[in-house]
Amino acid sequence: MPKISEERKSARREQILEGARRCFAENGYEGATVVKLEREIGLSRGAIFNYFPSKEDLFIELAVRDNARMSETWLNEGLEGVVRAVVELDPEWLSVYLELFRRVRTDHDFRERIESRQRAVAPANRERIEQAQRDGEFRDDVGPKEIGIFVNLVLNGLALTRAGGEELPSTDLVLALLRDAIGPDRARTPARRSA
Amino acid sequence: MPKISEERKSARREQILEGARRCFAENGYEGATVVKLEREIGLSRGAIFNYFPSKEDLFIELAVRDNARMSETWLNEGLEGVVRAVVELDPEWLSVYLELFRRVRTDHDFRERIESRQRAVAPANRERIEQAQRDGEFRDDVGPKEIGIFVNLVLNGLALTRAGGEELPSTDLVLALLRDAIGPDRARTPARRSA
Repeated sequence: MPKISEERKSARREQILEGARRCFAENGYEGATVVKLEREIGLSRGAIFNYFPSKEDLFIELAVRDNARMSETWLNEGLEGVVRAVVELDPEWLSVYLELFRRVRTDHDFRERIESRQRAVAPANRERIEQAQRDGEFRDDVGPKEIGIFVNLVLNGLALTRAGGEELPSTDLVLALLRDAIGPDRARTPARRSA
Repeated sequence: MPKISEERKSARREQILEGARRCFAENGYEGATVVKLEREIGLSRGAIFNYFPSKEDLFIELAVRDNARMSETWLNEGLEGVVRAVVELDPEWLSVYLELFRRVRTDHDFRERIESRQRAVAPANRERIEQAQRDGEFRDDVGPKEIGIFVNLVLNGLALTRAGGEELPSTDLVLALLRDAIGPDRARTPARRSA
């Protein structure tokens, strides 16, 4: 058996993940059969499952990457960046998440596998909120955890609206009202003007 | 064939809808087979489909009722009532909605059937926002439509968190921050204290 270089292995991993994402988005998680995954990825099941032992592993790796990218956006581009990123998510792909909500709630192992990877980025995200509080961008009379929870509610609401194909509210409006909720006391007046 | 009184018809409709809701919640929409629906409702498929010609009709009637009840809560109990109502929704039943999001986005007829019934309650909901603006409960420098959209984002975010079985934020906190976003300018200080 020929040895595959690390570089080729890594390229193949990317090929598999990209194909799996398209396949899930197009067919839903349940609808993405092994035959469809093979066709979309362009590799045999043997080759695919050599890298990812199950369909579940494929999904979890994709979810972990989404999560890391969203955290990255939050750290580098702040509130505005993350709101704009959620508004631009692919509705087809978001529907795959919604399809798996029942499973996340009821399947303890599945939930733990996803959450353990999310916990890895949590401290940096929290630190970014604390920094924004010190900078006077966010109010400091409410804890950073609470601010994070509220921002997440609004982001989840946006993602759900997007997944349903409903008309999205203006991003500027969402940002203005969100800043009125979590910004410092004196931020209200300029936020009103931009709304 | 014996005639059934209107009263008995109405009781049977309720029996069917209650059983269907339990069956969908327990098995998911796709998982709720005709056999499972018969067992949970306690009637034969012939009797059930005499009232509701398809599984889709059952779901739509249940969704329409949820929507009417939520609108009722909003009209009678305002922001606090509606936030508390969403927080108490059954996660199992919420997952049925999530499962159908792909369909709502892609199946035009299905979407139209749900939305046409939602449009019926929209004017009263809007009027209630305008009233709150006149009463000084909500800010009036942002349109009532925009306020409704933002409140909906937060409610959808809460519903999604609830459906995933994640820990919900404190309802008082959500209400305080939401009021800071959509309340009048001077509301900020008391809202901060209660957060």
